[in-house]
Amino acid sequence: MRAARPGTAFMPETITLSVDAMGGDHAPDIPVAGMAKLLELRPETRFLVHGDEARLRPLIEPRPSLAAACTIGHTDIQVGMDAKPSQALRRGKGSSMWNSVEAVKSGAADAAISAGNTGALMAISMLLLRKIEHVHRPAMTALWPTARGRTVVLDVGANLEANAEQLVKFAIMGEAYSRAVERIEKPSIGILNIGSEEMKGHEELRGAHARLVSGAFDLDYRGFIEGNDISMGAVDVVVTDGFTGNVALKTAEGTAKLVGAFLKEALTSSTTAKLGAVIASGGLKQLKERMNPSNVNGGVLLGLNGLVVKSHGGTDAVGFATALRLASRLARSHYRDEVVSNLFRFADLAETRAAGEPTPQEDLA
Amino acid sequence: MRAARPGTAFMPETITLSVDAMGGDHAPDIPVAGMAKLLELRPETRFLVHGDEARLRPLIEPRPSLAAACTIGHTDIQVGMDAKPSQALRRGKGSSMWNSVEAVKSGAADAAISAGNTGALMAISMLLLRKIEHVHRPAMTALWPTARGRTVVLDVGANLEANAEQLVKFAIMGEAYSRAVERIEKPSIGILNIGSEEMKGHEELRGAHARLVSGAFDLDYRGFIEGNDISMGAVDVVVTDGFTGNVALKTAEGTAKLVGAFLKEALTSSTTAKLGAVIASGGLKQLKERMNPSNVNGGVLLGLNGLVVKSHGGTDAVGFATALRLASRLARSHYRDEVVSNLFRFADLAETRAAGEPTPQEDLA
Repeated sequence: MRAARPGTAFMPETITLSVDAMGGDHAPDIPVAGMAKLLELRPETRFLVHGDEARLRPLIEPRPSLAAACTIGHTDIQVGMDAKPSQALRRGKGSSMWNSVEAVKSGAADAAISAGNTGALMAISMLLLRKIEHVHRPAMTALWPTARGRTVVLDVGANLEANAEQLVKFAIMGEAYSRAVERIEKPSIGILNIGSEEMKGHEELRGAHARLVSGAFDLDYRGFIEGNDISMGAVDVVVTDGFTGNVALKTAEGTAKLVGAFLKEALTSSTTAKLGAVIASGGLKQLKERMNPSNVNGGVLLGLNGLVVKSHGGTDAVGFATALRLASRLARSHYRDEVVSNLFRFADLAETRAAGEPTPQEDLA
Repeated sequence: MRAARPGTAFMPETITLSVDAMGGDHAPDIPVAGMAKLLELRPETRFLVHGDEARLRPLIEPRPSLAAACTIGHTDIQVGMDAKPSQALRRGKGSSMWNSVEAVKSGAADAAISAGNTGALMAISMLLLRKIEHVHRPAMTALWPTARGRTVVLDVGANLEANAEQLVKFAIMGEAYSRAVERIEKPSIGILNIGSEEMKGHEELRGAHARLVSGAFDLDYRGFIEGNDISMGAVDVVVTDGFTGNVALKTAEGTAKLVGAFLKEALTSSTTAKLGAVIASGGLKQLKERMNPSNVNGGVLLGLNGLVVKSHGGTDAVGFATALRLASRLARSHYRDEVVSNLFRFADLAETRAAGEPTPQEDLA
């Protein structure tokens, strides 16, 4: 089971994941089942498991290899799925969510993972881990299935708005994230906009475009893209404000669900259709697998001094394992060092500018 | 062929449609083929056809019933598919697009239809037809296929932004439009937002929400909805700004296309899958029909003194006929009278407010 994976020349580094075992619609069962799944794939993983020990032990102990990899940190407190961020900050101290993030802050773990309330997790993470220097607003990522693979979209809801400078920082963070997660050497970047002529997008989009197109950042920036380009995989990283990104993501989820429902209806509409569906079931299973949201589960709040992965609240064991794997991959990568150095570069440029030396294309901004 | 349609007690009223026969990717063939299709369904329709007579005659004359229903208005000028709105205003006078809208202004036709450049059509329509009193910004509609039927979404790109008052007017216009097109007695309305707690949406969304929830407008307002609710058909009318609406619409189109491509791959992935697909072809054809964008073709620029329908530029004959039918249905309806009276009601409320009499829930706005 511990055979080296292809392309891994050295013993895999041990990664410690800090898991909020009480967050999500089906906790603690799904988090525990997800940990067991990841362990099959990455036996070198270690877990700090935060939650109600009395409920966790009966789930973990029957799995000897999981039990060997886990350290339970008991707590009675948990953040409710409908808690407001302010409530989570006031009353969440010592909760399974809080403790899972705290373990990243203290250095006991490489990453925290929670399927709990998004707003609460963002608030607790920002409070405990603080923002990286030069980041004014963190951004939440999503992995979006496309015709060419997967695309990183950010921000999908950490903030309502973003100005030009923040969008440029989203591009810098998203690019490093894409390289770490998707292992693309030089990810391409686009800004989400609408195609209408003579009023091409909000002022902040045009400002971010002018800064990125200047070439000052050594990014493969491809310009504006439109909504339909996301699913086509036109770029590896889609930059947008949190409001637009959240609407786009949920609209796509709703559309995929609708088409799936139409397909199901179509394939049960007659006896012949049903028979055809049975015969084509291999291919249809492949389709279902490609459309399975569990395969793209896991969003990261980029821009913090520490790694926190948000799993979908209603995910299954496969989905939770996907989020854990994402955390593990990111923990191994150097994306945060890259983000930090790229952001400093950005800040240097801004200082140069402030000192009166024009940067290329500056007049466009 | 002229048999009364179910529910039509009287002889159908003759509707005259003014068609830009030179607009769109496959003009004039597709517009002419679309007119022929509509005429089969609505033989009482009359057409004013604007475009190059030398190209139109050979297409129209071989179809005797179409020829009898058409009057060709010759012009050599046409607005290019990539013309900017400002160019269209400067150089578009006398073009097929211009003349088709002009015929609505003069009263010669009940509605204009064009598959040409969207920005140019909006600019020409606004110039010639002018806005209805109390409308500051017109809104472009889209019909969105849902699990329950179709939903009206507006604005999908006429404006980049919308303030609270404009969003309320979009709700008023969209509701009357939904009643006219979908024949729903009391369409339900939602405002597109994101679900994140404690920062529920932009200020303008909260402002529009407060005004609509006050009940002052006799609308079936259901509150905020999220992106995934659109395709589920949660409400009959979705209100949003043009930027967000455009991104959502194009994202949904891209997603549907992607799922379609995945399905095609899945059903050609093996000989067995192919066989199953052949057997299930009846059901799959039904699915294809439901997903066919031609069935929802046609956007209307609401808020003008006259009816202009924008067809998708790349549509086929069925799609162009759908846009013509939409125009015909709207021309028969009283939606513009309703819009006008509802907008006046809104203005009265605003005046009452200005005079110091508080309206219900005003403090929330």
